[in-house]
Amino acid sequence: MDAMTKTSRHPKIHIGPKSLPELVDAVKRAGGELTDLASEAEGLVWWGGSPGDFVKLDHPGLRWVQLPSAGVEEWVRSGVLRPDVVYTSAVGSYAESVAEHALALMLACVRELHHLARSDTWTRPDVGTLFDSTVGIVGCGGIGRELIRLLAPFRTRILAVTRSGTPVPGASRTVDPGGLDEVLSASDFIVIGAPATAETRHLIGRRELELMPPHCVLVNIARGSLIDTEALVEALAAGRIAGAGLDVTDPEPLPDGHPLWTEPRALITPHAANPARMLIPRLAERVAENVGRYARGEELLGLIDLSRGY
Amino acid sequence: MDAMTKTSRHPKIHIGPKSLPELVDAVKRAGGELTDLASEAEGLVWWGGSPGDFVKLDHPGLRWVQLPSAGVEEWVRSGVLRPDVVYTSAVGSYAESVAEHALALMLACVRELHHLARSDTWTRPDVGTLFDSTVGIVGCGGIGRELIRLLAPFRTRILAVTRSGTPVPGASRTVDPGGLDEVLSASDFIVIGAPATAETRHLIGRRELELMPPHCVLVNIARGSLIDTEALVEALAAGRIAGAGLDVTDPEPLPDGHPLWTEPRALITPHAANPARMLIPRLAERVAENVGRYARGEELLGLIDLSRGY
Repeated sequence: MDAMTKTSRHPKIHIGPKSLPELVDAVKRAGGELTDLASEAEGLVWWGGSPGDFVKLDHPGLRWVQLPSAGVEEWVRSGVLRPDVVYTSAVGSYAESVAEHALALMLACVRELHHLARSDTWTRPDVGTLFDSTVGIVGCGGIGRELIRLLAPFRTRILAVTRSGTPVPGASRTVDPGGLDEVLSASDFIVIGAPATAETRHLIGRRELELMPPHCVLVNIARGSLIDTEALVEALAAGRIAGAGLDVTDPEPLPDGHPLWTEPRALITPHAANPARMLIPRLAERVAENVGRYARGEELLGLIDLSRGY
Repeated sequence: MDAMTKTSRHPKIHIGPKSLPELVDAVKRAGGELTDLASEAEGLVWWGGSPGDFVKLDHPGLRWVQLPSAGVEEWVRSGVLRPDVVYTSAVGSYAESVAEHALALMLACVRELHHLARSDTWTRPDVGTLFDSTVGIVGCGGIGRELIRLLAPFRTRILAVTRSGTPVPGASRTVDPGGLDEVLSASDFIVIGAPATAETRHLIGRRELELMPPHCVLVNIARGSLIDTEALVEALAAGRIAGAGLDVTDPEPLPDGHPLWTEPRALITPHAANPARMLIPRLAERVAENVGRYARGEELLGLIDLSRGY
C-alpha cells in the first residue's frame, strides 16, 4: 500500500460535498488538517451527495476516500472509483444498530407484532419464540457477529454462511455458499447480511424460499437486491414462509401500492436500521480512527476491494 | 409446614377440572399416583376452569393445590383459598417466554415497528435504540431477572424496584417502592413486572406518567390493573410518553372500540406473552418438580403467601 507510506503527520482532509460538524470534529481530533479546497486534499471524507457528484471532488492528488456507508455497491457500480486510490467503507461501524434492528424484526415476526399492531380487537394469537431456535445468518460479517452476541441469551443455534466458510465465532456451524441450501432448510429464522454484489443478486429466489420451512421467518437488513422480490411476494401470499421483516427492499424506496405494503406476513421498515442519530456518531468514530491511522501510515479499517465489490 | 411432613412417597394427585396429557405425564413421571376422584386426592393440579369451579373439587383432605398461572390475584380475590391448604403458583416458570415478549415490545416501540406496520408508504422514521439505555423494572422477580439477562448485550443500566429493595443481581441499582419516582424519571424504558395486589393497583397513574421522560417507552407484561388505563390513554394521546407496549390491559379483554386500539403510540398484544405452546411444557416441568418435592416432603416452588396476595 504505497499510498499509506508517504503520508504526513497532519494529512490535508476535505469533507464534502457537504460538511457536518461531527465529522469536522472527528478529523481535527485525529490530527487531520481540514481544508475547504477538495483539490488540496489527499484525504476525502464523503458526506452528502450521490456517487455522481464524486467527479467534482476527485483530483490527481487524492489518495484516500472514506465513504459513509457500510454497503458501497452503488459506488462500485457507478465506475467512479479509481484503482490508484484507497477507498474505505464504514463496514462494521453500524453493526450494533443494524443487528439490534434485525433482532427487533425477528422478535416482531415470531411474536406476531406486525399482525397485532394492525388489529383492533382482542384475539388469541399463537405466537412463537426465539428460544432454542435455529438462526441461519447468510453473510456473517460485522452485523452477523453482533447479532450472534445479541442472540446468545436465547440459546439459539447459529448457522453461518460466509464466502470463505471459515468458522465464525459463536456459530454452531459455518458453511460456504455451497452449504446455503442446507442452512435454509434447517433454519427457523434466516437473516440476510451479505453485501450486494453481482454474485449475491437474488441469492434468495423462488427455489431458496421453497427450501425454508413453512414456519420460517426471513429478515433482510442488508440490501434488497439479495432477495427476488417477486418470488418473495408469492411465497408470502401462499404462506410458504411465515413472515418477512424487511429493512431493505428491491426496488427501494418501495413504491406506493406495492403488494408488500399490504401483505399481512410482511413487516417493512424503510431502511431505518441505522438512523442518522446513531449513524453520525459511529461514522465520526470511524473517521477519527481512520484519519489517525492514515496519518500514522497504518492500515485503514473498511478497505474496499474493488475486484470483490465491497 | 406441617402438611409437607406427612406426605406419602406416592401422593394421590387429581388433575382438574380438565385433564391434559402433558400434566398426566408430569404427575406420573414425578411418582405421583393419579386419581380420577378429586375427593381422594391430597394434591390438586388445577387445569381448565375459573376459581369459581374450585369448590367442586375442594374437600377436607386436600393439602396442596398447584395453580397453573404465575399471577394468582383472581384466586386470592375469589376467597376460595383456605389458610390450612398449601397453594403454589407457577411463578418463575414462564419467565423466559414473558421476558422475551417484554424485549420484543421494547424493541418494537423504540424501533417504531408498530407505526411502521401500519404504514403503506416509505417514510423516514428516526428510530431509537436499546443500546446504552436505562431500563427501570418495576417489580423485578423471575421475569425481571430473565429480562436483565436478555438485556445484558445492550449495555443497559438496570434500575430495579422491588418490595424489599434487596439488590437484584445485574441491576445497577435496586430500590424499594419509595424509590419508584426516581426510577420513573431516570428511565428510557419502564417495564412493569409486579404482581397485581391491592397495593400495586394503579401503581402507574397520572402523576407517575408525568414523571417519565417524554421519550420513555412503557411496557406492561404483568397485569393491566397496575396501570391507570384512563391516565395512560391521556398521556399517550398528549405525547407525554413516547409509547406503550401492553400485553395486559384493564379491562381485559380490551373491548372493541377502546381508545387504546387506535392510539398510534400503543402496541397491544392480547395477553400473548406466554402462549399455550410455551406455557404447557413449562407448567408440566413445574408440576413434575413440585409433585416430586411434595412426595419427598421438601419445600414447594411458588408458594403463595395469602396475606401478601401472591
